[in-house]
Amino acid sequence: GISTGRLTSNMDWSEFQLNSDGLIPVIVQDYKTNEVLMLAYMNEDAFHITLSIGKMTYWSRSRQELWTKGMTSGHVQYVKSLTLDCDHDTILAKVSQVGAACHTGNPTCFFQDLVAEEYLEKNPLKVFENEFNIIKD
Amino acid sequence: GISTGRLTSNMDWSEFQLNSDGLIPVIVQDYKTNEVLMLAYMNEDAFHITLSIGKMTYWSRSRQELWTKGMTSGHVQYVKSLTLDCDHDTILAKVSQVGAACHTGNPTCFFQDLVAEEYLEKNPLKVFENEFNIIKD
Repeated sequence: GISTGRLTSNMDWSEFQLNSDGLIPVIVQDYKTNEVLMLAYMNEDAFHITLSIGKMTYWSRSRQELWTKGMTSGHVQYVKSLTLDCDHDTILAKVSQVGAACHTGNPTCFFQDLVAEEYLEKNPLKVFENEFNIIKD
Repeated sequence: GISTGRLTSNMDWSEFQLNSDGLIPVIVQDYKTNEVLMLAYMNEDAFHITLSIGKMTYWSRSRQELWTKGMTSGHVQYVKSLTLDCDHDTILAKVSQVGAACHTGNPTCFFQDLVAEEYLEKNPLKVFENEFNIIKD
C-alpha cells in the first residue's frame, strides 16, 4: 500500500483502470444515511491529496483544475472510507458531508426525477408485474 | 417527456451531458438498503430499452454491445426510479436487484477496501480530529 500523510491506501493509483480522460469516477455517498450525493472524478494528484488531507479532492473537468470540495463553500467532505469495485475502474467514497453536497444548495446533486417511484407504484401494469415477480421469486 | 413503452422519462436523452465516449454514467443503488451496487454506462439505445422493458440496460464498454443486466445470469435489476444530477451528466438508478449485482457473486461490486473506516476510527489523530469537528459544528 501507499502511505501519503494521514491515510493509507491498500492499492496504488497504477492499479486503477482509468477512463478515456485518464480519470477514475468517484461515487460519493453519505456514510450515515447512505444517500448518494454526487459523482466526481479523480486524477492521480487528486487521489494523493485526498489521502494526504482526508478531504475529498477531485479533478474538475469543466475548470480543468484540482478541486478540494468545500474549500470555498465550506461544504467539505471528510473521508470515512474508500472502496474499489471489482474491475478497478470506480471508487466508492463514504464521506461525512458538511452542509449541502450540491452547488445548488440541495443536499444531494440527484434531485431531478426522470422516472419516479410514484409512477411505478401507481401504474397498474407495474403493480401487477411487481406482484408477479414477488410470487415468481 | 418521452414515453417509450412502460416507463416515461421527464427528460429526453438529448438533454443529457455525455462524457468523452458519448455515454452517461449510471450509479446503481439498491432501492431498499441504499447500498451502492455498481457503476455502468448507457448510450441512447440502452436508455430507451431500459424505459421500454423496465430492466436496467447498459452499453458494455469492454464488449462494445448493449447489455440488459441479468439476461444470462438471471440477476436482473428492475427499475424503481431514475434521477438526474444537477449538471445532467449522471443518472442515479434505484433498483430491485435479483441475486448478486457483481459478476464475482458478491452482492455489490464495491468490496475492495482502499481506506477502511476501521483505520479511520482507530487512528488516534483521526479520532481526535473527528471529535474536534463535532465540537466545531
